[in-house]
Amino acid sequence: MTTNLVNRRVVLAKRPKGVPVADHFAVEEAPVPELADGEFLVKCEYWSVDPAMRGWVNEAPNYLPPVAIGATMRSFAVGDVVASRHPDYAEGDTLSGMFGWQRFAVSDGSDVDRKITETDLPASLALGVLGLNGITAYFGLLECCEPEAGETLVVSTAAGSVGSAVGQIAEIKGCRTVGIAGGPEKVALCRESFGYDAAIDYRNENVAEAVKVACPDGVDCYFDNTCGPISDAVLTCLAQGARITICGTAALTDWDPIPLGPRVHRQLLVARARMQGFLVLDYKARYGEALAELADWVRDGRLAYNEHVLDGADAARGAIEMLYEGRNRGKLLVRVD
Amino acid sequence: MTTNLVNRRVVLAKRPKGVPVADHFAVEEAPVPELADGEFLVKCEYWSVDPAMRGWVNEAPNYLPPVAIGATMRSFAVGDVVASRHPDYAEGDTLSGMFGWQRFAVSDGSDVDRKITETDLPASLALGVLGLNGITAYFGLLECCEPEAGETLVVSTAAGSVGSAVGQIAEIKGCRTVGIAGGPEKVALCRESFGYDAAIDYRNENVAEAVKVACPDGVDCYFDNTCGPISDAVLTCLAQGARITICGTAALTDWDPIPLGPRVHRQLLVARARMQGFLVLDYKARYGEALAELADWVRDGRLAYNEHVLDGADAARGAIEMLYEGRNRGKLLVRVD
Repeated sequence: MTTNLVNRRVVLAKRPKGVPVADHFAVEEAPVPELADGEFLVKCEYWSVDPAMRGWVNEAPNYLPPVAIGATMRSFAVGDVVASRHPDYAEGDTLSGMFGWQRFAVSDGSDVDRKITETDLPASLALGVLGLNGITAYFGLLECCEPEAGETLVVSTAAGSVGSAVGQIAEIKGCRTVGIAGGPEKVALCRESFGYDAAIDYRNENVAEAVKVACPDGVDCYFDNTCGPISDAVLTCLAQGARITICGTAALTDWDPIPLGPRVHRQLLVARARMQGFLVLDYKARYGEALAELADWVRDGRLAYNEHVLDGADAARGAIEMLYEGRNRGKLLVRVD
Repeated sequence: MTTNLVNRRVVLAKRPKGVPVADHFAVEEAPVPELADGEFLVKCEYWSVDPAMRGWVNEAPNYLPPVAIGATMRSFAVGDVVASRHPDYAEGDTLSGMFGWQRFAVSDGSDVDRKITETDLPASLALGVLGLNGITAYFGLLECCEPEAGETLVVSTAAGSVGSAVGQIAEIKGCRTVGIAGGPEKVALCRESFGYDAAIDYRNENVAEAVKVACPDGVDCYFDNTCGPISDAVLTCLAQGARITICGTAALTDWDPIPLGPRVHRQLLVARARMQGFLVLDYKARYGEALAELADWVRDGRLAYNEHVLDGADAARGAIEMLYEGRNRGKLLVRVD
């Protein structure tokens, strides 16, 4: 039944060094293969665009092997099962998983993240606040930063899909929250949509000075998605016993060779601070725990989110660059054409 | 009874930038004041020379205010109570404490670390393996690195007074231990006196390559006393979930402005590693716990130590520089003249 379907997909055409741009990708069409026993077919509705995708196409060491030239771009996606020869997946199921930037994904279930059960909420949320972005914020904040009520949390990329959830979860946990974002529009989002107590515009303010003003007792928790000059500035304002989550490296476009920056050692030593790398995939066994609480917060209106939806495969080619340039306004998605 | 005593002491004569040398200190004599009620007089037997003393004389932010110009150099020391008007301290008690580089210290007890009770062992050990060096190794390793049996530990300044204890405690805990030290003599010490499974000479080997060979499964625990190029090399070899204790910054002579180095963020992220600043003073309430176990290990011969003793106040003036140049062979002490 699947033989007449056309799989339109975005493949990696060239190996980028740093942030991939539209030229590194090509759109092509291919037939959809017949399903074997134990397989099912997912028709993708939305593709995700995430900072981690830069790492997946570069050759530098990463937690996953690089996407091969000519292969479908690796990505999270959400879609419906349209045919199944697998006992656990039925036509009509909505799934999120690592289906890639393609219209149709043949799956044996190994690339499925989950069946979407919160059917009262939009399916696209499974790629954002009820997907790895929200789960990343949840565990990266609660398990690595370990915020306590009354403490001050700073988050970079504060209006982004991870950062905005970090700020709001920290607020739910009783923290004073300070967001760092780029430009007046995002700073306004931080204050008005995401409830930060203070917001700093790194494009138009001296970040170190602004953090000192916003955090007179120092920064207890820092959730970092940048690892560049913003991070350097925040590290000059650590409170004693500060905890820093290294979640993403958005500010730096190239890791080979390793770029230079101010040495963090003495700042960590003087503050007896802790800096920890965080990868959400390590918490896979506990995703359900996070999702249940995140979905409740969304329903209660305590956890707001923004989506920025691009249209179709051609738009996807430039999406990672758009993300790294900060031109998106909310969780960046591609509606599949 | 104390009026005729002469207090010979080493004072800070000039404010250094970086490592203080002999010229930054002066030796002077002063009368010993009469004791007031609640005070006692300590005659110092040994002064300690510690890497932290560089931080104490520099103006950069630190965990203690800088030593004032003209003031007695702050230091740990061990000595005997020779007169007392304090109910808790009696003539003949042996104490360790922050008595400074002076022959006689008038104390009200607030600068005392402890009364030395392990009278079967040399009193000088209270400045080394049974003092803050040993306690630093104990808590910095066990609480921050959290080593588990079968894991691989790397320690820099591996033949030093802290490092050698770290390596031996890790071995007691069932780790494979790799020491990094400077020069063939110290490397031989690591292998022969301190029982490291492997030892690397950072002056004559490529550290990153040597660590890769010595740690084929990666570095699980790294106890760092250097925070310079050696640290940078070890960070290229982290195992997943690695824990790094930042204990000292011996490799870098100046922190103002903050020196540049390779950014650690992505290495921490890829390895999901943790880097944590450690200051032994935070564990003050638990020193007894460490000392009891350390003293038992010394008595059992499982915890070896070396001492390097300089003679008198004039030798003390160049002692911190000697330490930073790595010219000492064991815990550096000054026998008080």
